Amino acid sequence: MTLSQSHAQALDAADPLASYRDRFIITDPTLVYVDGNSLGRLTHTSQERVQAVLNEEWGDWLIRGWNRGWYEAPQRLGDKIGALIGAAEGQVIAGDSTSVNLFKLATAALRARPGRTKIVSDRLNFPSDLYILQGCVDLLGNQHTLHLIGNPDDVTVPLETILDAIDETTALVSLSHVTFKSGFMYDMAAITAHAHAKGALVLWDLSHAVGAVEVELDDCKADLAVGCTYKYLNGGPGAPAFLYVNKNLQEELRSPIWGWFGQDNPFAFDLHYSPAPGIARFQVGTPPTLSLLAIEPAVEMLNEVGMAAVRRKSVLLGDYLISLYDEFLAPLGFTLGSPRDATVRGSHVSFRHPEGYRINRALIDEMGVLPDFRAPDNLRLGLTPLYTTFGELWEMTQRIVQVMEKEIYLKYSDERTAVT
Amino acid sequence: MTLSQSHAQALDAADPLASYRDRFIITDPTLVYVDGNSLGRLTHTSQERVQAVLNEEWGDWLIRGWNRGWYEAPQRLGDKIGALIGAAEGQVIAGDSTSVNLFKLATAALRARPGRTKIVSDRLNFPSDLYILQGCVDLLGNQHTLHLIGNPDDVTVPLETILDAIDETTALVSLSHVTFKSGFMYDMAAITAHAHAKGALVLWDLSHAVGAVEVELDDCKADLAVGCTYKYLNGGPGAPAFLYVNKNLQEELRSPIWGWFGQDNPFAFDLHYSPAPGIARFQVGTPPTLSLLAIEPAVEMLNEVGMAAVRRKSVLLGDYLISLYDEFLAPLGFTLGSPRDATVRGSHVSFRHPEGYRINRALIDEMGVLPDFRAPDNLRLGLTPLYTTFGELWEMTQRIVQVMEKEIYLKYSDERTAVT
Repeated sequence: MTLSQSHAQALDAADPLASYRDRFIITDPTLVYVDGNSLGRLTHTSQERVQAVLNEEWGDWLIRGWNRGWYEAPQRLGDKIGALIGAAEGQVIAGDSTSVNLFKLATAALRARPGRTKIVSDRLNFPSDLYILQGCVDLLGNQHTLHLIGNPDDVTVPLETILDAIDETTALVSLSHVTFKSGFMYDMAAITAHAHAKGALVLWDLSHAVGAVEVELDDCKADLAVGCTYKYLNGGPGAPAFLYVNKNLQEELRSPIWGWFGQDNPFAFDLHYSPAPGIARFQVGTPPTLSLLAIEPAVEMLNEVGMAAVRRKSVLLGDYLISLYDEFLAPLGFTLGSPRDATVRGSHVSFRHPEGYRINRALIDEMGVLPDFRAPDNLRLGLTPLYTTFGELWEMTQRIVQVMEKEIYLKYSDERTAVT
Repeated sequence: MTLSQSHAQALDAADPLASYRDRFIITDPTLVYVDGNSLGRLTHTSQERVQAVLNEEWGDWLIRGWNRGWYEAPQRLGDKIGALIGAAEGQVIAGDSTSVNLFKLATAALRARPGRTKIVSDRLNFPSDLYILQGCVDLLGNQHTLHLIGNPDDVTVPLETILDAIDETTALVSLSHVTFKSGFMYDMAAITAHAHAKGALVLWDLSHAVGAVEVELDDCKADLAVGCTYKYLNGGPGAPAFLYVNKNLQEELRSPIWGWFGQDNPFAFDLHYSPAPGIARFQVGTPPTLSLLAIEPAVEMLNEVGMAAVRRKSVLLGDYLISLYDEFLAPLGFTLGSPRDATVRGSHVSFRHPEGYRINRALIDEMGVLPDFRAPDNLRLGLTPLYTTFGELWEMTQRIVQVMEKEIYLKYSDERTAVT
């Protein structure tokens, strides 16, 4: 079929998940929002939940809320997130930020593998993860070396490159399962098996994977994972993150931050810390309840749909967007900054262009398209299967074509002032 | 004047802050809420703000919110909290939990005083703070000793006891400015001066002090502080905490958690961490924005009133409550678990009774009073000057008398099942 608006409409008409778009609050239906990989949209159920937490819970229950569901929320939500990433109950807990969780688990892992001095990661990783690892090396007395493979602008990484970097001196492998720029997806099962054969632990950052692709932590015998909830889980700006510790490691590992929510019996007020059994020991302090409870309805919705169906549509959206790129954008000087092969691609696609920054500004400021820009030249487009439509991708492509053909981007400065 | 209901009403009529009670959502006017030191009430302005953040900001602005005030919120709110605790701008930042902040600052302080092996704290401290310090000792290789003075049930601590514990081997003194059980308030200026004379750093936990008493961090030449926002700041359940680092120490200290929000230029995506100048370097990851922005209106209200006026009423409330105790409760077997001298007392008062746990349950379940219980025998009563009335304290006392005279508490089990 030839690419056309009616073809896009036909794809939407055939989409079994099309009705889920109505679950989201969409104030401006003409806006093409392709930044759900940075901040997911607000659902009606999350909106209602937060209002209930404000008015009925905090406002009326007051302190009694802790006995009426708040206290259990981190584990309850953790299990629901776990169901999206192949983790059986009791292995995921919500709270803190992704970076704090990465710090806790990386430090715990390095201390559990004394004598091993190598940490393996890559330059495609989100820099925030590398900062945390650099901090761990410094904190633990510079006994470890952070070994980075690849380059920041690589689109993919050959499996053997990462496998070859893992050896008998490796304590920890820390990677983003789906990389933030190109959307390349690592082979979790193969890397985990190889790392285990060498005696190393693996810590996955699932921030761009959870809610976007099918993840099978338990089946892969994964050790550790962290991830964020404000992208494909639609949890709200800066919503608390989560962490996963495989049941087999929960007794062996100890968080470096001895928090009272991770204490065996926090309300006994013992003077000496004794870690709680199970995943709770990786908690620290009181979680931000408004932000935490906002996440739950959207996660329940994803569980209702099931990640297999979400992933099916994500792949269709990605393949369709790349076909639009081939037809309309490649001739205008864009290059593909993401894998063409859907089996190694997450749910976002980057198009590279030397004028990417100015093109992104023009799209945001006057074309009703909200992507984001990632240096040096990536226009990054997030595909969120429950609300992104084929029609939107068609329309967005036509708007990008306009920006290029009418040279609209030329009036924008290349000075990088915006926060995001 | 004799204690009576009409006397209490006269005190309320003479209260210059009485009208502030209307700023709070009070769904049940018969409920005597004396647990604002655990979770403050919801203000109308915070309710409106969260609804705006949901509907107009997250719902409509989407990712653009980061360019429209979200990104600056931790420092903006930090400065407003700073104004309540005598901290000039650029020294306070909001985010993370109190425990995570304590971990960051305690670890940074210990690493900045190499060779010194003693950490001084007390057994009156909130156990969560002791857990964090125990974890720091473990993480840094058990080179430090945690030296604890006093006993958990002490009501006060003589100044010389804490001063004597601080010597030339002391790296860090870490205390709650107002202790969580008795409400005893330490002399911040004297302890800080003595610690500095010995070459030690001091880290204050202001959780039960901020919004409750006048704190003058800069005037005391304080080094470090942390605190929580869900008590007297009315920030909401588990609302993000804050930390203070004196300007003179900001360059010297380095957070052990190298977070991207503490990076010099987070959106440049450099692969190597370089700490931001100033207080921002003590941030870690993306803060939970719903919970964070909910705090700001209530903090603005406290700044509008001013801590001197808040403290004046707090002292009047506390002295009045103790006069009710003398008249009605001491004869029923209660003892005073807080300092009688208002100059060393925060804004909560504890009454001790061997049946404290069951009395607390009876008050909550059938008497319309919400205090809290702190083992072994403390009925803890929080006085929040902007919404606690003298009439409520009169009424509450009569209800406690009823519980005792009718032996209502006897039907409650002593088994400690509730979370709080």
